[in-house]
Amino acid sequence: MIIELQPNIGPEIKRAIVEKVAAIGYKSMEVKTQRSHYLVAIGKKDFDIRTIGHMPGIADLHRVSDEYKLVSRKWKVAPTVLDLGDGVTIGGGGLAIMAGPCSIESEKQIEQTLEHLVANNVKIMRGGVFKPRSSPYAFRGLGIDGLKVWYNLARARGIKIISEVMQVSQIEPMLPYVDVFQVGARNTQNFNLLDELGKVDKPVMIKRGISGTIDELLSSAEYVFSAGNEKLILCERGIRTYERASRNTMDINAIPILKAKSHLPVVADPSHGIGIREFVPPVALAAAVAGADGIIYETHQKPEEAFSDGQQTLDFAESSRLINQLNEVIKFIQN
Amino acid sequence: MIIELQPNIGPEIKRAIVEKVAAIGYKSMEVKTQRSHYLVAIGKKDFDIRTIGHMPGIADLHRVSDEYKLVSRKWKVAPTVLDLGDGVTIGGGGLAIMAGPCSIESEKQIEQTLEHLVANNVKIMRGGVFKPRSSPYAFRGLGIDGLKVWYNLARARGIKIISEVMQVSQIEPMLPYVDVFQVGARNTQNFNLLDELGKVDKPVMIKRGISGTIDELLSSAEYVFSAGNEKLILCERGIRTYERASRNTMDINAIPILKAKSHLPVVADPSHGIGIREFVPPVALAAAVAGADGIIYETHQKPEEAFSDGQQTLDFAESSRLINQLNEVIKFIQN
Amino acid sequence: MIIELQPNIGPEIKRAIVEKVAAIGYKSMEVKTQRSHYLVAIGKKDFDIRTIGHMPGIADLHRVSDEYKLVSRKWKVAPTVLDLGDGVTIGGGGLAIMAGPCSIESEKQIEQTLEHLVANNVKIMRGGVFKPRSSPYAFRGLGIDGLKVWYNLARARGIKIISEVMQVSQIEPMLPYVDVFQVGARNTQNFNLLDELGKVDKPVMIKRGISGTIDELLSSAEYVFSAGNEKLILCERGIRTYERASRNTMDINAIPILKAKSHLPVVADPSHGIGIREFVPPVALAAAVAGADGIIYETHQKPEEAFSDGQQTLDFAESSRLINQLNEVIKFIQN
Amino acid sequence: MIIELQPNIGPEIKRAIVEKVAAIGYKSMEVKTQRSHYLVAIGKKDFDIRTIGHMPGIADLHRVSDEYKLVSRKWKVAPTVLDLGDGVTIGGGGLAIMAGPCSIESEKQIEQTLEHLVANNVKIMRGGVFKPRSSPYAFRGLGIDGLKVWYNLARARGIKIISEVMQVSQIEPMLPYVDVFQVGARNTQNFNLLDELGKVDKPVMIKRGISGTIDELLSSAEYVFSAGNEKLILCERGIRTYERASRNTMDINAIPILKAKSHLPVVADPSHGIGIREFVPPVALAAAVAGADGIIYETHQKPEEAFSDGQQTLDFAESSRLINQLNEVIKFIQN
Repeated sequence: MIIELQPNIGPEIKRAIVEKVAAIGYKSMEVKTQRSHYLVAIGKKDFDIRTIGHMPGIADLHRVSDEYKLVSRKWKVAPTVLDLGDGVTIGGGGLAIMAGPCSIESEKQIEQTLEHLVANNVKIMRGGVFKPRSSPYAFRGLGIDGLKVWYNLARARGIKIISEVMQVSQIEPMLPYVDVFQVGARNTQNFNLLDELGKVDKPVMIKRGISGTIDELLSSAEYVFSAGNEKLILCERGIRTYERASRNTMDINAIPILKAKSHLPVVADPSHGIGIREFVPPVALAAAVAGADGIIYETHQKPEEAFSDGQQTLDFAESSRLINQLNEVIKFIQN
Repeated sequence: MIIELQPNIGPEIKRAIVEKVAAIGYKSMEVKTQRSHYLVAIGKKDFDIRTIGHMPGIADLHRVSDEYKLVSRKWKVAPTVLDLGDGVTIGGGGLAIMAGPCSIESEKQIEQTLEHLVANNVKIMRGGVFKPRSSPYAFRGLGIDGLKVWYNLARARGIKIISEVMQVSQIEPMLPYVDVFQVGARNTQNFNLLDELGKVDKPVMIKRGISGTIDELLSSAEYVFSAGNEKLILCERGIRTYERASRNTMDINAIPILKAKSHLPVVADPSHGIGIREFVPPVALAAAVAGADGIIYETHQKPEEAFSDGQQTLDFAESSRLINQLNEVIKFIQN
Repeated sequence: MIIELQPNIGPEIKRAIVEKVAAIGYKSMEVKTQRSHYLVAIGKKDFDIRTIGHMPGIADLHRVSDEYKLVSRKWKVAPTVLDLGDGVTIGGGGLAIMAGPCSIESEKQIEQTLEHLVANNVKIMRGGVFKPRSSPYAFRGLGIDGLKVWYNLARARGIKIISEVMQVSQIEPMLPYVDVFQVGARNTQNFNLLDELGKVDKPVMIKRGISGTIDELLSSAEYVFSAGNEKLILCERGIRTYERASRNTMDINAIPILKAKSHLPVVADPSHGIGIREFVPPVALAAAVAGADGIIYETHQKPEEAFSDGQQTLDFAESSRLINQLNEVIKFIQN
Repeated sequence: MIIELQPNIGPEIKRAIVEKVAAIGYKSMEVKTQRSHYLVAIGKKDFDIRTIGHMPGIADLHRVSDEYKLVSRKWKVAPTVLDLGDGVTIGGGGLAIMAGPCSIESEKQIEQTLEHLVANNVKIMRGGVFKPRSSPYAFRGLGIDGLKVWYNLARARGIKIISEVMQVSQIEPMLPYVDVFQVGARNTQNFNLLDELGKVDKPVMIKRGISGTIDELLSSAEYVFSAGNEKLILCERGIRTYERASRNTMDINAIPILKAKSHLPVVADPSHGIGIREFVPPVALAAAVAGADGIIYETHQKPEEAFSDGQQTLDFAESSRLINQLNEVIKFIQN
């Protein structure tokens, strides 16, 4: 059960509600986000919801039987729309395109990519400055200095930044320079990181775990939300299966299912979802038609020379073609 | 290596080719289909392809390194188009829609379904008369008598029939009454059934195994082709993964990959691919945009009362809406 | 619910029982096996079991809520023991060892293998004469003639034969020459084959599907049982997962789970379960300790030259060592 | 290539080696652990290893083609033995048993568990004080205070402690009170945590990821090793598959494969591996026979009342029985 409290509720009124909930046999947890103030009450007993609903101090109240509560559509039916400023939004209609290299490599690369995005009217650039690498001997990214260079160049052109945060200690230094924090597939269940991102007032895009379930992704979003940050995006990026003809298996089913289960925007990552450059465009189009609120993919001026993920990265010509196709498809969807 | 022989090649000329191939150290297998006559030569040694290419009796010759040869796009670049008669085709552009119930249940049900298809200009009806059921106590289908009733009603309305064949002994009785044989996901590697379907002059649609790989599906098609039947369709219907929020995981990646690897048409089955009625349409649209040559899905006058698969079956209103959306999407694809 | 009928029950007494079952709202199916005579009743309503239990003609009666009934331990608690004659048994304690090549290749190979088995006191030889091969161009086995040669040589040395049957038409010709029919992993849900094997009076070992669930394996056994053949063995042979360091993932969990769910003997196949020669022995020992009633594995006089599966096949020295270890482990288990 | 340097190597001699490696076209990374001093050189070119091997300052040198180097058996053939003090060791023969509750719940629970372990001569107690929970509303553990209580009680009885560390900030406070740090399945690829554990002089047991590959587990161990800590244990705890009859699929294959690929000790966790209380013992025995160096499992005075994982937790009577069986099995293995 989610109890939305009235703004500026007095301590006694709140205590009365907490005690009433306890009397029913439910445990409650207070959740304050940047937007509102809730009691999340957990329990299994049946009771007459009106006995609580009529109490002073309660703005709204819903039963939610899922393990995730605050991210559930059963609680909040209207889609969440995230506003990155300057008219750039994610969710609630339209298709947010986010493109850029796997790794930020150099100032020149950033400039070339920004130029490509501006030319195609794309508003959000992706790129990694901290790279999670399974081998300790691989390239680990340009770090915070790379991010600052990128920030200055991107801001000058009105482009927003999404970049992966790998650990708690990176949140604070990254905060001024990113518009969206990305949580990678290996950190979907790094609960401490999620908790800390709950204290931040910037959007967070959570990628589904490498073999995470849809419900686990929603529970990870619930972690961040219940720690105080409502600005969340879910990202389907393919799952690990037995099939070896593609890097991952893009779970296209997850898109309509996540949209039905949650009010949060859903972004698809076809680059990781299939992992093969020539097939990224059809998978991107499929995800858009299936209902995704955004597409995030990898593009690089010379994919053959990219520091990482080159085999799944589009060159700028391929990227421009895909953007055109996505813009066509959006028209179809909106009819 | 695939050697296409000239029509009406003489026995001595053929023997000379076979001996030449053997001299290189390759084993060869003669394949006669309804369309042509081949030697499929298997081996690993390197040799100058011209030493064979110039021989009399050879119409064409290609190296194919995949384990599957005759179904490979490396051999035959042009897409295969299957003509079911009366202008109904599968492959080579356009989107073939096939709809109908999981199980054929009654004459009345057949009539209602046909009416729905005619009203929506759909030309192919699906339905099972032999049902593979994991429990021996479940409904096993109306059998050959049901098929005959269906055939008469469908022919009267110009509708083609696709239906599953489960065993060798069913091929002959079914042959006059189906336009496309379907091989189900549990029979993808029933090699005797595949061999026998190779002797038939009707199209065969092979579903991917429940956890079959893309390469296994192509090898199964190779079985039928090398036994003499070139009229083949590949069908992606979702694979078994750890995810429990959907019945199967629709492998959207498989569609562009199969199209690139093979010249055969690729059909998608969103009903089994996601297994949840309300989400069948977005998955169907996604598959069409990803490049499928056809969509096969389940529809029933009253899904709640269907003998089988009701939870993934559209009612006729939902089906009509989906057909309209697919027709819109086709226009986008063809631009 | 399973109702075991008394032997030689009269038609009127039987009809009375069937009608009583129908009156409760259950569907019933009559099952006659070589051993007994049953009514399997399917339904969900609650009723007082004594209203049926007291009727004349009923030998025994049990409720079984699983989808599989006759193979369930809820119905038959005592383990099934299969007697192959000459004191060779499977199930009910002890460890049946079955060894031999993947494919039967030649008379000489058969003789060498038999000699190896006799020297190590192994009583059952495995080997394929019909090979299911995913490529149509691979070796497909010596066929029924190879089986006859094998039979004559094996009988002369008191060795029993287990061999795979791939299709219905092979059952009759194989019947005189095998002691156990094996149903391969690609045929676990070939329901027609299962139905026909239900009419045969010889044991059938059913391998779990390549990605079959434990419940699907039990339902496949139910098919054969309900068609009349109670002489069944379940075989765990590894499942398909994302892990690529081994050919399959041996599901060691399946052994105690199958033993708890069913009264049928459970055999483990470590050769396919891991697919790497040097690691077959530890997996075989693990399966024995986990409760398997038998171990089936591949051995060949020269694994490097085997027609198939050489990379997972033990040579005779390795095989002798494994047999000794298994015999040691049996002592531990029986204490 | 791994170059083990001589102790107290002079800076000029070291520089000469580094330059020589660079001249061949390899990148090198210096690794100092508590035990020794290495250069790990990464590259693909072929060269005569003697041109480096004869240089002054080099104690040993091996080529290792795997992506993981320092944890590979190709480099270090002898098994790693970890000494926890007081004669308690892991690896190199014998079977280390680690038992205890999922969560540390109370002082009384700790005392009862310790008593059970002492009575059965078990030397290592497991238990969680920080719990990774997929729902933010679940019990998250007693924290560092619980660990201190546990430490005092355990030390008084000569029992060692293994406990999970979830984040970097917990390492320092936990350090004095644990004998082995455990990295959980959700943190196997939390590379920052791994890096920091590389700076610690206490053993670290890394659990395989929920759907991690064997190679990923080895690369995670390489992270810790290359950051300075050689005291590592690998843990197989079951993987996520499509099978729903068990919580996870215990990958018994992983045990011999990990033992062959790495010199590190391998521990098996049958509690998570199967997730069903009654079947934990057969899986534990199987893992021991397959070559595990240790078994870690969950036991609780009243599993039905455990705060977490009760359905896979043995009571003390079951635990005593399992310990006896494991001790019997060890004798078999050691013969």
